[in-house]
Amino acid sequence: MRFPYLKYLLKSVTDVPEQRAIKAVFKDGSQRLFPYVWLRDCSLDDKTYVISDAMKGRLHTMRDFDVNVEPLSFRLNSNGLIVEWPGNVVSCYTQRWLRTHCPGSKEVIEKRRQIYLGRECIRLWEDGGPTSKNRFQFFHQSFLEDDKVLHDFLQSVCVDGIAVLRGQEYGPNLRNEVFLSIIRRIGMVQPTHFGETFEVCPKPDASNMAYANTGELPYHTDFPSLQDPPQLQLLHMCKQSECGGGKSMFVDGFSIAREMSLKYPKEYQILSDYPLEFIEEGYDVHNVKGFQDKEERVDFSMVARHKTFKTDESGLIQVQFGNVMRSWFLDMAANDPLLVQNIYSSLKLFTELCYLPENQLIFSLNSGDTVLWANTRILHARSAYNLIGIPERERHLLGCYFSWDTIKSKIRLIRRQLKLEEDQETL
Amino acid sequence: MRFPYLKYLLKSVTDVPEQRAIKAVFKDGSQRLFPYVWLRDCSLDDKTYVISDAMKGRLHTMRDFDVNVEPLSFRLNSNGLIVEWPGNVVSCYTQRWLRTHCPGSKEVIEKRRQIYLGRECIRLWEDGGPTSKNRFQFFHQSFLEDDKVLHDFLQSVCVDGIAVLRGQEYGPNLRNEVFLSIIRRIGMVQPTHFGETFEVCPKPDASNMAYANTGELPYHTDFPSLQDPPQLQLLHMCKQSECGGGKSMFVDGFSIAREMSLKYPKEYQILSDYPLEFIEEGYDVHNVKGFQDKEERVDFSMVARHKTFKTDESGLIQVQFGNVMRSWFLDMAANDPLLVQNIYSSLKLFTELCYLPENQLIFSLNSGDTVLWANTRILHARSAYNLIGIPERERHLLGCYFSWDTIKSKIRLIRRQLKLEEDQETL
Repeated sequence: MRFPYLKYLLKSVTDVPEQRAIKAVFKDGSQRLFPYVWLRDCSLDDKTYVISDAMKGRLHTMRDFDVNVEPLSFRLNSNGLIVEWPGNVVSCYTQRWLRTHCPGSKEVIEKRRQIYLGRECIRLWEDGGPTSKNRFQFFHQSFLEDDKVLHDFLQSVCVDGIAVLRGQEYGPNLRNEVFLSIIRRIGMVQPTHFGETFEVCPKPDASNMAYANTGELPYHTDFPSLQDPPQLQLLHMCKQSECGGGKSMFVDGFSIAREMSLKYPKEYQILSDYPLEFIEEGYDVHNVKGFQDKEERVDFSMVARHKTFKTDESGLIQVQFGNVMRSWFLDMAANDPLLVQNIYSSLKLFTELCYLPENQLIFSLNSGDTVLWANTRILHARSAYNLIGIPERERHLLGCYFSWDTIKSKIRLIRRQLKLEEDQETL
Repeated sequence: MRFPYLKYLLKSVTDVPEQRAIKAVFKDGSQRLFPYVWLRDCSLDDKTYVISDAMKGRLHTMRDFDVNVEPLSFRLNSNGLIVEWPGNVVSCYTQRWLRTHCPGSKEVIEKRRQIYLGRECIRLWEDGGPTSKNRFQFFHQSFLEDDKVLHDFLQSVCVDGIAVLRGQEYGPNLRNEVFLSIIRRIGMVQPTHFGETFEVCPKPDASNMAYANTGELPYHTDFPSLQDPPQLQLLHMCKQSECGGGKSMFVDGFSIAREMSLKYPKEYQILSDYPLEFIEEGYDVHNVKGFQDKEERVDFSMVARHKTFKTDESGLIQVQFGNVMRSWFLDMAANDPLLVQNIYSSLKLFTELCYLPENQLIFSLNSGDTVLWANTRILHARSAYNLIGIPERERHLLGCYFSWDTIKSKIRLIRRQLKLEEDQETL
């Protein structure tokens, strides 16, 4: 287009009462219909919205709002479209605002959907993610100092499901502070029944397999025992094993699901149709809200059902699996042993696909490194490692969980603050 | 049945290799098929499970598990079914365990589904819930002292979506401690971008409508701006308004949805099909993890889409609405003003149904009272109130959020501890 700004200039506005809308013709020749009720509802005047640094909110309630509202008059002026409404409200809609907010406009929808940082932005590993390139790695120090690096790190987690910070080792006394400095950069931690944060090192009477031994941990997602498993997990490697092993292993559950849906549709369907039950019963000891920073024993009895592949009308939305917590219960309507056999065989196939070398991302988190990943998409595992026998030199991790809402909010805030091109107007 | 115990006694077991199962005939004449792979997977021997107070978990991984396993031999003895498996595993399945765990058995499924405390246990208000009776009210002191009352209180929230504790007023210095004593009884708090807990009293430069004024608050759910809104909300009324007003108003969104689906199917469909967008941009000041108990300013930029009525293959699972945070964006494929009009008209109808007297539960939380409700099912509102002008005598609430996982875990723990009939075996 020779004059791209023409699309933001209004040529004329006319009433279309049979559609309860105002028709706007732009100078690039295109036209759009703006519904009366929507124009009134979204008017940015101070009778309609309160706008301050601390909050932005609509003032009128749906109970009092007249959804059959019609304009008293409207006209174009140099600022845009001016509409007079009943109740002494005069609204001014700029030409650019109209063009970029019009309901049902394809360009508006495509841009707006990017703000959710959701499935539209997901890149499966088989389509060229972290297994093929090193672009999921960032420097710890840059992450702490540079908001753009923080943005790119978090965005990688949205797109590829995982990102890594490469850092350096700190002594035992500094480990917790380094870990907290990472948390502070990201935002609000999501607590679980293991507390706000957790520590992974061999423990007696462990309440979780990861704490219990130094052997291999198989591919799993964390806490399928919860109806709402934590969405993102962070692990900070304070100290890697000095005796080798303890490698981090990841696989993109969404890629595996697509591979199964294409090559093994019957097994894919079974894992999309039949929920498995997961149980977790025991206790942990940690600080608890309301107990004045004393450690308390926390008992839990978690039970949840998940389809291995959870879908909605838009496709796959969650992958959950963990053999340790998987229960005896299968929710199926018939006493049908061959169906049970098919469920187990499909789980076995899923697991075999996870372990195919081309599907796995295996690397060592070195002392000082950190990894953040999407626990409802990526499965993780750990190779076995050896103890050295000196407590302060053993393998030692600190970890915590986050929600997508927290991660995405931080990304949007940085986009606004750094005026990145992905930033979008709020209202 | 004259001899009900007969159903738990085995008469014979035979191999059914073409179904990869063992057929068990019980002395009540019924028979069940037990799949080989399931029997091996769920064997409670110590090569298959680790069972301690701190955890219960399956030991074998899916990678190493032979899903084509077959028994070497099996027989009945006085303990039940004895099966020898490859790998020197001998399993003993008691007769009662077999009967109560059989995959695809209707009685097993019906009982097991009760453990989820999910949609199967929901009672809509129109079918006789808190609007028709006072059974949703409990005594604060009994709740603190008696685990059965705690159980019944939490179970009411699962069933009816709401429950109330009737307490007594405490002086300003004791309010926080009383509030924390309630939290300690229930379990882990779910933090939001407003902190772990929040306070509702008139504030300058408020970041949320509820904090901003003493006027009426319309029906809404909290935080539709989050992709995962908090599931349960607790409010503790430290001090009710001395000048009247400030009543609590609740409506069962699930009942409204059913009413709409029956009487206004077109409008119901629109609210089930079209997501609305909700935005929340601002900041709050509160204690944050990693900041050593200093108050910090927390900025947020939340955006989420929700259908007003969210459904899955089993029916309605969530109701979300809030006019303050509702955004300008409508995700629809066509520039169709009459569809926009229909969305607004359907929201208006939904709101009008919420305000019908027969649908509302309106009561005063007196000083010392507490209410806990399901924020993804129940909408809440507040009537206007007046200030008295003396800070320590103003209306004052403390609140926080919980997840269903926490609430249901507590219910299951009490059922186990008090040996209630609803308790179920874990393994």
